[in-house]
Amino acid sequence: MDIKLDRYCFGADIGGTTIKLGLFTPGGDIVKKWEIPTRKEDNGSHILEDIAAAIKSEMEVRGLSKDNIIGVGAGAPGPVDKDGVVYKAVNLGWGILNMQQELNRLTGLMVRAGNDANIAALGEMWKGGGEGFKDLVVVTLGTGVGGGVIIDGKVVSGCLGGGGEIGHIHIEDNETEICGCGNKGCLEQYTSATGIVRLAKRRLEKDDMESRLRGGEVTAKTVFDAVKAGDALAIEVAEQFGEYLAKGLATVACVTNPEVFVIGGGVSKAGEVLLDYVKKYYKQYVFHASADAKFKLAKLGNDAGIYGAAKLVLE
Amino acid sequence: MDIKLDRYCFGADIGGTTIKLGLFTPGGDIVKKWEIPTRKEDNGSHILEDIAAAIKSEMEVRGLSKDNIIGVGAGAPGPVDKDGVVYKAVNLGWGILNMQQELNRLTGLMVRAGNDANIAALGEMWKGGGEGFKDLVVVTLGTGVGGGVIIDGKVVSGCLGGGGEIGHIHIEDNETEICGCGNKGCLEQYTSATGIVRLAKRRLEKDDMESRLRGGEVTAKTVFDAVKAGDALAIEVAEQFGEYLAKGLATVACVTNPEVFVIGGGVSKAGEVLLDYVKKYYKQYVFHASADAKFKLAKLGNDAGIYGAAKLVLE
Repeated sequence: MDIKLDRYCFGADIGGTTIKLGLFTPGGDIVKKWEIPTRKEDNGSHILEDIAAAIKSEMEVRGLSKDNIIGVGAGAPGPVDKDGVVYKAVNLGWGILNMQQELNRLTGLMVRAGNDANIAALGEMWKGGGEGFKDLVVVTLGTGVGGGVIIDGKVVSGCLGGGGEIGHIHIEDNETEICGCGNKGCLEQYTSATGIVRLAKRRLEKDDMESRLRGGEVTAKTVFDAVKAGDALAIEVAEQFGEYLAKGLATVACVTNPEVFVIGGGVSKAGEVLLDYVKKYYKQYVFHASADAKFKLAKLGNDAGIYGAAKLVLE
Repeated sequence: MDIKLDRYCFGADIGGTTIKLGLFTPGGDIVKKWEIPTRKEDNGSHILEDIAAAIKSEMEVRGLSKDNIIGVGAGAPGPVDKDGVVYKAVNLGWGILNMQQELNRLTGLMVRAGNDANIAALGEMWKGGGEGFKDLVVVTLGTGVGGGVIIDGKVVSGCLGGGGEIGHIHIEDNETEICGCGNKGCLEQYTSATGIVRLAKRRLEKDDMESRLRGGEVTAKTVFDAVKAGDALAIEVAEQFGEYLAKGLATVACVTNPEVFVIGGGVSKAGEVLLDYVKKYYKQYVFHASADAKFKLAKLGNDAGIYGAAKLVLE
């Protein structure tokens, strides 16, 4: 007699402070989500043990056996190759680690691992701003700028996990400050949350133009709030931001010609106004074959990673 | 009784002047190659008929039936989508044309169509400078700059055939002349054969510095010949060329993180010296995950297209 088993998959998104976990149905319904702290002591050597323990405990509570679990997807903040090997995740204290193999050993479950930004992109394709598309680029504008390039439904991880590192596209020849990566003039230096603050501060220092940004704390949020309030200086900053991001995305379009760009990360909370500034300049820099690419906001916020991780094992 | 049939495939590479044709074994041995003129009259409406006639005639001469032929691959100079639809091939007089369907109708054979530069890239992966690699970028430095991006052995054609258009990556903010595509500051404006001539002429006009490039005709070949002869002005031009191309390729590396860049086209006849200038600046602009990408020269020359077209039907 054939009994149809309930089947689930786990998604884990490992961040520098917390590990987000989710239990999903194969259709993409989230059954439960929770968080555990990221234990960075001993070079992060307890992180995978903690994930395995969390998964086992959840399976026990729900009375799920290995047969109920399709697999575990996991994202880490560092380059991850096709075999699930992480090449340094500085924020976790990891050197080179075969995360996929190790988590498989610890759980006895099928495991797929990937880079956190790439996996978040997959999540947005599955159930977020990129739903319905198979050729897309997801850009995450947070403290840094991450990206995920998806072609025909598959994330481009690259030969050493360096695919989708669009924050480090060289975009400005005249930069004097050094990016976190060691180069100068990376897209991230102008379009991340900190990059927007840099642009705003440079503009504020340039002259005495009146602005509601003067005197208070300058953040990506206060800049875009000021834009919405019609602040002329903030609008100049938004134009600069839009031109830089558009140049970078027009470049990406020359490589993969995506159907849609999905913009997420904390900065994207500014909403549609942010897309307007990017679209305006995109038209100016893009090669004609990619002129009609759509721009959408990401939808899943911080949950994109667990969605994408779960999706990874369903492929 | 099972008789093992001899199996072959055809590759066709449609250029503005001639159509190159090749008959291949599935293992990639070339049985015959030949050319027919590209008839551009009547908006190029005889081109596919001519290819079909050439194929039929070759089959007849060799006593091959449809069962002997795996298929026909064909490349056209314009954006081609996944279904083999060409979106304007200006050099052939074509508007939007379902080349794959039409050539299938004319031959009765399985047909796969793609963009010529993308297909040349596939050829170089199969039997050329990229042999043995599956994640590569082929750059063709000819009259223009074409490209082919290959991920996991498959060409990235993009949603509207605009994948691998790396000649139109925006690379220079201070350009005043307009590129063939209508934008300003495209990679092609500095690294194509004509781009190198522009760089050289601008440098020659700048001052009176002695150079063997003065007085004679300036071409990409004379520039690199002068470089090899130690001409200081030509070396400056090669440095500029190398820096522009390196910037462009470092950008592509941020998107797909390839194992190898294969450089082809007429300009690449300069040989290893050309790669030296590119590698020098690549190190300076690349994100660390892609720092170890290899650089190789293309090997198949003008035959890359027919090789790649044939490979297209073997996938």
